[in-house]
Amino acid sequence: MTDALSKPMVGRLALIGIGLIGSSIARAARARNVAGEIVVQTRSEATLKRAEELNLGDRYTTDMADAVKHADLVIVSIPVGASEAAAKAIAEALKPGAIVSDVGSTKTSVVRQMAPHLPKDVHFVPAHPVAGTEHSGPDAGLKDLFENRWCILTPPEGTDEDAVQRLADFWRALGANVETMLPEHHDMVLAITSHVPHLIAYNIVGTAAHLEKVTDSEVIKFSAGGFRDFTRIASSDPTMWRDVFLHNKDAVLEMLGRFMEDLAALQRMVRYGDGDGLFELFTKTRAIRRNIIESGQDAPDVDFGRHRATQEGEPAAE
Amino acid sequence: MTDALSKPMVGRLALIGIGLIGSSIARAARARNVAGEIVVQTRSEATLKRAEELNLGDRYTTDMADAVKHADLVIVSIPVGASEAAAKAIAEALKPGAIVSDVGSTKTSVVRQMAPHLPKDVHFVPAHPVAGTEHSGPDAGLKDLFENRWCILTPPEGTDEDAVQRLADFWRALGANVETMLPEHHDMVLAITSHVPHLIAYNIVGTAAHLEKVTDSEVIKFSAGGFRDFTRIASSDPTMWRDVFLHNKDAVLEMLGRFMEDLAALQRMVRYGDGDGLFELFTKTRAIRRNIIESGQDAPDVDFGRHRATQEGEPAAE
Repeated sequence: MTDALSKPMVGRLALIGIGLIGSSIARAARARNVAGEIVVQTRSEATLKRAEELNLGDRYTTDMADAVKHADLVIVSIPVGASEAAAKAIAEALKPGAIVSDVGSTKTSVVRQMAPHLPKDVHFVPAHPVAGTEHSGPDAGLKDLFENRWCILTPPEGTDEDAVQRLADFWRALGANVETMLPEHHDMVLAITSHVPHLIAYNIVGTAAHLEKVTDSEVIKFSAGGFRDFTRIASSDPTMWRDVFLHNKDAVLEMLGRFMEDLAALQRMVRYGDGDGLFELFTKTRAIRRNIIESGQDAPDVDFGRHRATQEGEPAAE
Repeated sequence: MTDALSKPMVGRLALIGIGLIGSSIARAARARNVAGEIVVQTRSEATLKRAEELNLGDRYTTDMADAVKHADLVIVSIPVGASEAAAKAIAEALKPGAIVSDVGSTKTSVVRQMAPHLPKDVHFVPAHPVAGTEHSGPDAGLKDLFENRWCILTPPEGTDEDAVQRLADFWRALGANVETMLPEHHDMVLAITSHVPHLIAYNIVGTAAHLEKVTDSEVIKFSAGGFRDFTRIASSDPTMWRDVFLHNKDAVLEMLGRFMEDLAALQRMVRYGDGDGLFELFTKTRAIRRNIIESGQDAPDVDFGRHRATQEGEPAAE
């Protein structure tokens, strides 16, 4: 790892977009001395001002082309639907040999949108750090957001190996583990581990909000029965998630189809009182939780740590 | 509230079943000096021994009838499918004037199973504390589990008002808020706030585990994209949850039908690229999360507190 006295891994880092992910990269890069200089770009004057107040970079601009000039590494962290416009805006200003990457949750679409517009003398290495929270904007960034999370690289065929390696090193320096796969496979994996879970969380919160027989006030009061967990995910950034579903349609529809088919089977077990079938499914699903905790992808804290005081043996509040 | 020197609210408390909920009642009642004497019953010798090691009660027995003798308050905390057998087993041993209650997640079924077997000279007041964690067994109990959670009482028509009031006071003494409603309404409210959320969590974990195109190892590695939250709920006790679905069939099927109908509409929005429709839903759902946090039914910790260190301004681990 880089220590405070050695030369930073990246000379100039340009961040296009400074929301949850962009500002987490800025904070992590600072904390770990990974970049010599950080240029922050966002199109909103107010957001840029906020980023400056938070001291997230060394230079600030609303202009994408201006931001990427002389940058060694450019990371585009914006809703995936805006990728093509960003590629067009930065293309001519990019330094030969620069690495251009992104953090989008869908990869075939990002490759399709950006690759045709980028000059041949830069290295385009799409990436997706699988990490986040339900909050958004520059204030939401966390410098340890990528710690022990996975960052997936999806370099198009023929990408310079050295550039891929340098981007992998960058993400490792930010605390992440790195895996490489094809964009199409990435989109299928994320459809089941992220996109469909978000869709059904949004959906049940929507269903609960539109009932005649149960009031919103009751839904809120009795949400500790399980519902409240879904509301966390369903409070994620609407623009980002709209774009995810518009740009990973095929994989989402495939995985959603599987989910709905399985749910119909489960509905049938409930209707016909198939207790053995229910019990069998409910037993199998425990093993996956155990594996996620053992692999360090979630904390073992009971109920997400909501009962921390008691676990530590302190008296409960009275 | 009761202090350490005053007479406990309940003379003898009999706990039938000593799992997550039963043992949380035992711990909360001890910590708050709510019961003069606690009798712990469970049919498994091994579990009973463990309860004794944990010092959860004053007397221990595997015999239900033995446990309820001379008890002023009996709380049955077992899977709801076992309610009728429990009512039959304790009926003759109950003290006249005793309050018999439960903690079951379904209420019309519990009333139907227990009421016919209980003697006329005891007060049957069904209850459901809406609280829990993904763990089970006597070790899983937490003395602050009911703190600021809601306990719903569903007394059948004609139940003695004083008995209802005494049970409400008992739950308040354990830290809970109390609300009273009809069993049928309870079952409808819990179907949407708890039962269907559990069913879809179990379902997506099941779907993810049976894919050909995505390996289990990938599901686990990239679970931080949202999936891991569902695995917590889907690791809840299989016996308890099998019984919930078998015993709240009508309300679950009604709410599940609504969920599936809404999901089909959402599927269609994805298929036809209706970005405005997606954005509108994703924006509305944020308000419910805000209300749940404001009402104290969930903590505002970002990402369920998984990034606690950073929030407190401490350096991230390197």
